[in-house]
Amino acid sequence: MTIVASTDPLDFTGKLSASHSGRLLRDRLGQRWPESADRLSTMVRHALLPAGKLIRPIMALESAVAAGGRPEPVLPAALGLEYLHVATLVHDDIIDGDATRRGRPTVSAAYGTPDAIVTGDALIFTAFTAIVECRAGGVPADRIVAAVDALAGAGSDLCRGQVLEAGLAGDPAGAATEYLEMVRLKTGALFRAVCQIGALLGGADAERARLLAGYGESVGIAFQIRDDLLAYTSDAATIGKSTTSDLANGRPTLPVLLAHRAGGPAQRRQLAEALSRGCADPAALAGVRDIVRATGALAAARDVAAEHAGRAHRRLSTLDESAARDTLAAIAGWAAVPG
Amino acid sequence: MTIVASTDPLDFTGKLSASHSGRLLRDRLGQRWPESADRLSTMVRHALLPAGKLIRPIMALESAVAAGGRPEPVLPAALGLEYLHVATLVHDDIIDGDATRRGRPTVSAAYGTPDAIVTGDALIFTAFTAIVECRAGGVPADRIVAAVDALAGAGSDLCRGQVLEAGLAGDPAGAATEYLEMVRLKTGALFRAVCQIGALLGGADAERARLLAGYGESVGIAFQIRDDLLAYTSDAATIGKSTTSDLANGRPTLPVLLAHRAGGPAQRRQLAEALSRGCADPAALAGVRDIVRATGALAAARDVAAEHAGRAHRRLSTLDESAARDTLAAIAGWAAVPG
Repeated sequence: MTIVASTDPLDFTGKLSASHSGRLLRDRLGQRWPESADRLSTMVRHALLPAGKLIRPIMALESAVAAGGRPEPVLPAALGLEYLHVATLVHDDIIDGDATRRGRPTVSAAYGTPDAIVTGDALIFTAFTAIVECRAGGVPADRIVAAVDALAGAGSDLCRGQVLEAGLAGDPAGAATEYLEMVRLKTGALFRAVCQIGALLGGADAERARLLAGYGESVGIAFQIRDDLLAYTSDAATIGKSTTSDLANGRPTLPVLLAHRAGGPAQRRQLAEALSRGCADPAALAGVRDIVRATGALAAARDVAAEHAGRAHRRLSTLDESAARDTLAAIAGWAAVPG
Repeated sequence: MTIVASTDPLDFTGKLSASHSGRLLRDRLGQRWPESADRLSTMVRHALLPAGKLIRPIMALESAVAAGGRPEPVLPAALGLEYLHVATLVHDDIIDGDATRRGRPTVSAAYGTPDAIVTGDALIFTAFTAIVECRAGGVPADRIVAAVDALAGAGSDLCRGQVLEAGLAGDPAGAATEYLEMVRLKTGALFRAVCQIGALLGGADAERARLLAGYGESVGIAFQIRDDLLAYTSDAATIGKSTTSDLANGRPTLPVLLAHRAGGPAQRRQLAEALSRGCADPAALAGVRDIVRATGALAAARDVAAEHAGRAHRRLSTLDESAARDTLAAIAGWAAVPG
């Protein structure tokens, strides 16, 4: 599959999702949890379906191919990587008190906190089951072990990132480097594991798997900055989730940190106040949005995203030319361009 | 190590804990999370230390030996099994709203729900990392993969058991068979995995690993009934956690289900009312305690625990005689005798 990033980001993810890999993944995503089998199945299906952009599992499959391997043996693990990603969303939504995700009620809003905790846990465990299933497709046991190790390590990093993020809350004067370390752990680590696991299970050699792991981490960081920017460039209806959650939770994302650094005393006060309020209305968001634009922080944050996407690109350049490599390059480009 | 169950259960677990395996485990339990390294380490240490009875990791090590293997290569995984167990406690305490565990504040009571979710997640991921670490001790990759599969499967069962338990809440007229299926999933599955993983990683053959898995499941069921009985035979100070949590959460444990079946209309009404209240005071507990005793349900529940412990014993009988087998037999005996 060769997919070139268009100027319309939604169009790009639409193409990805409609690709052969995208359709394969979409068809199988909920298969393991039959409709109305039991309450847990119902909740897991609520979390998983309709599917999101499936960026991570698509990256796992494309990494396998770009590194000289085959996508088929990776398919169960690719689904597992989406389970793990969705598990983190389910738990994050409890933590953030968010009620909407992908345009529908979050699991915690629909079923309550206790059931949402268990739904997330079940998705985490099934992610590991899914990796083990690749053994039946002929993947050597040592590669499965390496993949389990990568996934478990990414999970631990994710938790450290989550705690670090809570520690940064309320302080718009924090250093961008701390924020970027948090993002590396919270988002970069899973993207890193996704590409590494795809390459390893697809049969790639160690050097290429390492390269793709680095590519994935950089894409993940760019992607998170992109996600942070969406609150200032899109509305909730377009992105399917709250645009005020970061503010309501006092989270200084990159645009806010950069705006604080560049802003005058009045702007700094307004940013600090918006973060400390513990709740956010459209007016507060609009105020922060104005400052982020006026100080040039929006453009500066875009530059940081572009820098990480550039790193990802450079890592790909040592791989042989292939349609899969082109797709991964396009994903890096897309991750740096907020919709 | 040969440890014979004494008539004093606390004395028995004290001996287990003071054994060579117990000390080895205790020394290493928190090693991975240095004191004051970061907030996540602090919370994980709060959850793990001081250690509980370490029954599960001790069973993993003894299973390795009883099945003809060695305990040393299993040690990292045994620690991982305790991490996973503690992860379930941390998440359960959020779900049940419990504030005390092992005589100290629960993670959620000390650090709040968001951080407790992340602490539990981190322990789950690290459990898998710990299993993979056995590879460095010379365990073949295929056995690691089987152990990961067993752990992930047990985790999924646990989640199904948790949801099933929530579904049984409030109904003291439910069938004991449904309750036992819930216990098999919620508690039996992890004990099963503990013994199976110990045997597999220790180098046991498939037949012995299967036998020990069955032994573990039966011990787990007996152990859960024992735990349910503690609310009616001990006080909170002795067992270090709330004795009214099951009642407060409307959970009909086996003694209550059996008492409802055996009781008269007035007793049934009182049980139904105690479960439906959504909170429990010592007076409500005392009332249920009286009914559970008067109807013979306490003794009947003990008989069910003894039946499962008997099954566990019989499974052991086909293994060669060894000190480890004796210890496992003593654990089965202990699990059926409430303190």
